Amino acid sequence: MDLKKLLKPKTVAIVGASEKAGFGGDTTRNYLKFSKNLDNLYLVNPGRDSILGQKAYHSLSEIEGDVDLVILCTPQKTILPLLREAAEKNCGGAVVFASGYGETGAEGKALQKELVSEADRLGIAVMGPNCAGFANFVDGIFAFAFLVEERDRFGNIGMISQSGQIVLGGLDSPNMGFSHVISSGNSCNVKVEDYLDFLVEDDDTKVIAAYIEGITKPGKLVETFRKAALKKKPVVVLKTGRSGKAQELAASHTGSLSGADKVLRAVFRRYGVIEARDLEELCGLAAAFSWLESLPKGQRCVFMNVSGGEAGVMADLADEFGIQLADYDPETKAYLQTLVPDYGSVNNPFDMTAGIGYNTPVMVQAMKAISGDEHVDAICIAYTITPKIWDDTISHMVEAVSIARKDPDMKPVFWIPFIEHSRHQESADILRRAGVPLLPSGRYGCRILKQILDFAGFDFQDTEAAIPEKNHKISRGLSEYESLNYLKDHGVPIPPQAVAASADEAVLKAADLGYPLSVKIHSADIQHKSDVGGVKLNIKDEANLRAAFEIVMDNCRKNAPDANLEGVLLKPMLRAGVEMIIGVNNDKDFGPMIMVGMGGVFVELFKDVQLAPAPLTKEQARRILENLNSYPLLNGYRGNPVCNKEALADLLVSISKMAADGKDSIKELDINPVFVTEEGVSIADALLIQYEDTF
Amino acid sequence: MDLKKLLKPKTVAIVGASEKAGFGGDTTRNYLKFSKNLDNLYLVNPGRDSILGQKAYHSLSEIEGDVDLVILCTPQKTILPLLREAAEKNCGGAVVFASGYGETGAEGKALQKELVSEADRLGIAVMGPNCAGFANFVDGIFAFAFLVEERDRFGNIGMISQSGQIVLGGLDSPNMGFSHVISSGNSCNVKVEDYLDFLVEDDDTKVIAAYIEGITKPGKLVETFRKAALKKKPVVVLKTGRSGKAQELAASHTGSLSGADKVLRAVFRRYGVIEARDLEELCGLAAAFSWLESLPKGQRCVFMNVSGGEAGVMADLADEFGIQLADYDPETKAYLQTLVPDYGSVNNPFDMTAGIGYNTPVMVQAMKAISGDEHVDAICIAYTITPKIWDDTISHMVEAVSIARKDPDMKPVFWIPFIEHSRHQESADILRRAGVPLLPSGRYGCRILKQILDFAGFDFQDTEAAIPEKNHKISRGLSEYESLNYLKDHGVPIPPQAVAASADEAVLKAADLGYPLSVKIHSADIQHKSDVGGVKLNIKDEANLRAAFEIVMDNCRKNAPDANLEGVLLKPMLRAGVEMIIGVNNDKDFGPMIMVGMGGVFVELFKDVQLAPAPLTKEQARRILENLNSYPLLNGYRGNPVCNKEALADLLVSISKMAADGKDSIKELDINPVFVTEEGVSIADALLIQYEDTF
Repeated sequence: MDLKKLLKPKTVAIVGASEKAGFGGDTTRNYLKFSKNLDNLYLVNPGRDSILGQKAYHSLSEIEGDVDLVILCTPQKTILPLLREAAEKNCGGAVVFASGYGETGAEGKALQKELVSEADRLGIAVMGPNCAGFANFVDGIFAFAFLVEERDRFGNIGMISQSGQIVLGGLDSPNMGFSHVISSGNSCNVKVEDYLDFLVEDDDTKVIAAYIEGITKPGKLVETFRKAALKKKPVVVLKTGRSGKAQELAASHTGSLSGADKVLRAVFRRYGVIEARDLEELCGLAAAFSWLESLPKGQRCVFMNVSGGEAGVMADLADEFGIQLADYDPETKAYLQTLVPDYGSVNNPFDMTAGIGYNTPVMVQAMKAISGDEHVDAICIAYTITPKIWDDTISHMVEAVSIARKDPDMKPVFWIPFIEHSRHQESADILRRAGVPLLPSGRYGCRILKQILDFAGFDFQDTEAAIPEKNHKISRGLSEYESLNYLKDHGVPIPPQAVAASADEAVLKAADLGYPLSVKIHSADIQHKSDVGGVKLNIKDEANLRAAFEIVMDNCRKNAPDANLEGVLLKPMLRAGVEMIIGVNNDKDFGPMIMVGMGGVFVELFKDVQLAPAPLTKEQARRILENLNSYPLLNGYRGNPVCNKEALADLLVSISKMAADGKDSIKELDINPVFVTEEGVSIADALLIQYEDTF
Repeated sequence: MDLKKLLKPKTVAIVGASEKAGFGGDTTRNYLKFSKNLDNLYLVNPGRDSILGQKAYHSLSEIEGDVDLVILCTPQKTILPLLREAAEKNCGGAVVFASGYGETGAEGKALQKELVSEADRLGIAVMGPNCAGFANFVDGIFAFAFLVEERDRFGNIGMISQSGQIVLGGLDSPNMGFSHVISSGNSCNVKVEDYLDFLVEDDDTKVIAAYIEGITKPGKLVETFRKAALKKKPVVVLKTGRSGKAQELAASHTGSLSGADKVLRAVFRRYGVIEARDLEELCGLAAAFSWLESLPKGQRCVFMNVSGGEAGVMADLADEFGIQLADYDPETKAYLQTLVPDYGSVNNPFDMTAGIGYNTPVMVQAMKAISGDEHVDAICIAYTITPKIWDDTISHMVEAVSIARKDPDMKPVFWIPFIEHSRHQESADILRRAGVPLLPSGRYGCRILKQILDFAGFDFQDTEAAIPEKNHKISRGLSEYESLNYLKDHGVPIPPQAVAASADEAVLKAADLGYPLSVKIHSADIQHKSDVGGVKLNIKDEANLRAAFEIVMDNCRKNAPDANLEGVLLKPMLRAGVEMIIGVNNDKDFGPMIMVGMGGVFVELFKDVQLAPAPLTKEQARRILENLNSYPLLNGYRGNPVCNKEALADLLVSISKMAADGKDSIKELDINPVFVTEEGVSIADALLIQYEDTF
């Protein structure tokens, strides 16, 4: 659906315009106060001839020309007739503030369905219902129902929120300047994904800040994220639900660890979408990207302080948040040493002392020297933004930063205060004009700085997403033999295996496979083979094989009387190594997700797993392995040989390709364990659950 | 040393008083501006008869009566003569701003040593040198060298800092009110521990905030912490050095994981000292304790929001920071349901909706109902403190909180804003007067709330600290046999063991011990027995024992030709179980620290260890076990039997008592592994390193 008439209308009508408090009055007053062009605004109210000094129309029909956008401040029951009347004026967009729809139970849901269907029929893109409206600061359209503080809010942040209050929080934040602010409300026929797409395409928007409660168009979302990643436009998302207890449960190991919320976060990582965990992070990240003129070219930072104590605090924070401290070139260090007094020393974090910090020109020189050092990618000043006191330190520093930034070669500069509530708006405004992001205090600032550095260095790997096309319900589990054969047929290497229906056949097959081998019951009906006595390991010769065959079959006849026993599965004993688990869980929205972790307690107790959407490139496979806390176990831990991680990455790639191809046929896959040795990888067991309707 | 004349002087002289900028002028102006009683102030300057309208003295000697405190604004070389002159006036305290001492290398260190010795001789408690001075807001003494913003700073926070800039940060924080603020500088003959002790004893101080760089009097520190814990006076400490690379290395496992910084944090936990990780946490915690009129009686919180979106953000944050959400009594819930509109629902976090949040009397009723619920211990309002906008929501809410708090039965109420930099001082001041801590935003606020709840519930276990009395240098490792016997002799149960110098003797001893058993080389010179072929396990009979004896001895003669071989150590094979490591590392400052963790990768890779000072009570032993991430492994993991955790706790207690008794004889102890089963515990191996000079 085209959002142009909704978000960038040429002509606007406020229906229910008024002078009184409430949606009609507040929206009218906001529009008159904050919008740019009042010539193409029509105020509509059946009972009024003029409102707040503006001519009023008694109905939409009374307006002479077309109306692109109607802002409906009227109650729920008036909405459909008004939309029909608006359609007559070639209207393409409507803002509906009214509540009483999807948020209120069955009756409201039916009304919303009717609204969607009628709006679609009329070709009107509806924002809301139950929303706070929007503000387009680029073209000067202020269709927003809540009153806000008066200040200039124009900038380059595009903000979307499913909560009106959170939009207000953004609008009230003094360091945020916007291209567009959108409160999407119930998102009836225009979804949050559609607004995101609009903002990704919008050249007036440099950074996107989104508060999201739920996703309804995963394919569109992923495609939008992909476009943003290709443009390197930062998308910051706050998504609640990390603590949700209502996550999908799945039968296999993989499922239990990758609920829908974790899936969405894995999708974020794939596209370099920046995750904010609360409003301070959402607004802080958006403002920082908005102020920053160019991204750092690398990760190496220098922190500049005016106190040994605060330099120590910064060192601990940098370490905690994984911010890389630059090592100066010896020449830089020698030069800086000439700027500090005798008692000072040049470190990173760098306690500039009063010698530099209280002296504007000297601080400019110091910043230029540090920026000119090829071992440095960014500078961060760490000092609390207090109101000016008698000694004026803050003014010296802010002025120095502002002057230094005029040097066209100056690398990106950030500012982190130690205690935020003392912020000083005058200093903030100077820094903003100088393109120096003033981050929130301490820990918030460090995390945001780290996220910006990571975004700057993000190497997007463009692969086609595997979004399922159908919603499948019925599934069935394959036997181990069938599961492994499925892998083999789809390009995933597996060790040799054979099934045998009799002891004689087992002996024949064993001759090909070679001893020692394992004997397991072959039955699609038995998933936990050991529990029913269906496994015998390390069988070394024919006599033992015959005995094992009988024991396994007898046990299963006794312990699983209803199972259809097809014989036994024979496999050569594998050389043990580091045990890994690899899983696939096909998310109904985002498709097959690859899960990988070390076997046993590492996954279960320490939750040390990585999750990523299929398919994976080799580089992505390497990265998720390296992100495991238990990665050192693969890397020659305690004198053990270094495992063949390239083979493991190749295996992940082949499984991920199979999973992507199987986006409409594979429900779950649990490979447990995979043995990884210095030579390579071997899959010891697999359980595949397939959608029944794809057979 | 008595600090009374230093910190609570009756008469004060500023030496080097002046009108000019600099230490003398700034201190004089500060004193005249912020101090309460100018009658007992003497301004001293050899060249002036009056300063800023006050009479000036040419020297200390010229003053008629006694001078309790001298504030020396003069350069380093004048300090000693001035102290001597001051002593003649019965002076007991001096503030020395001058630098050029311990912070500047060998010469400065010598000067500081001389200063300490002379000050001690004269009986003068010196603050500094190289400090910013202090302010005593209770008695109105403002001996502070840096200029600060003009506002009322009186309150009940006692702040000490080894960094002048960090003191300034506290003084400039608009929500901090102080009893005393102390910049201790180089801490020559009065140490940070002495000031802490003063503030713990001081009845005008309700909460202590300390920035500490180093500890010099560990015994005093611990005794001070103990006094604070017994009084339940909160002590908040920011200590840099978490990332320090200069930590002590120790040979054994324990040592490598418990560097000095971790030791200090274990000491903090023992005494309920609250750790701040940066300045926002330090100031936020101090202000919160300062404003709070009483501590919560339990952990169960209700969050009140005015937005579904923000309630979701709060739920995620509460979960992340471990804040317990209260379950309402059904009656409370039913009552609250009558207050919200039809579309609202009563949850926790509770989206009050405009129906409550925009209506002062209704919000007061809601708060009273929630506070009256016996399942609730505290209320937290989560709303951004914006300046008043046209609709006045913030005023309604702040007013409601203020009214509700007048109810003498109202439980503690906190306020967490979502975006801090929009704070509104007028609202903050109302909340402060109402005893409602306004916490820093989002994540900071949640962590601080959690720390306050934990402090409120902290169950201090008073035990005598085991601070070493001597500094030991030389040590020697005991053999496994000797180490285990040491444990046995000091009340720690060990399995049976015997040594044998010949195969015949081994056979004799084995008859008592019983087969199967292990044979290990017995030599204090061989620590890694397996590496030299010095171990044979699971010996089942006499013939194998004789063979094992010869093999072990031969291997060691060959592979460790210089070792003194005393024979073999025989021990019955132990029943394997969950493998734990227990260690003792005797910190030179704080004495024996108990370390416990699961064996292998849990300790090494996941750093899943707990550290606590010896001795431990049974309850403390239980707690450190429960704090292990791998604790579920002891608790019937994956169908295994539940381990005997009481026996393990008893073992920890007995080891900790031995360690405390051995504070001047045990250097390190590494027990690895201890097997824990459903029956009990058994120590399989131990290595003790003893101080040589205690033999």
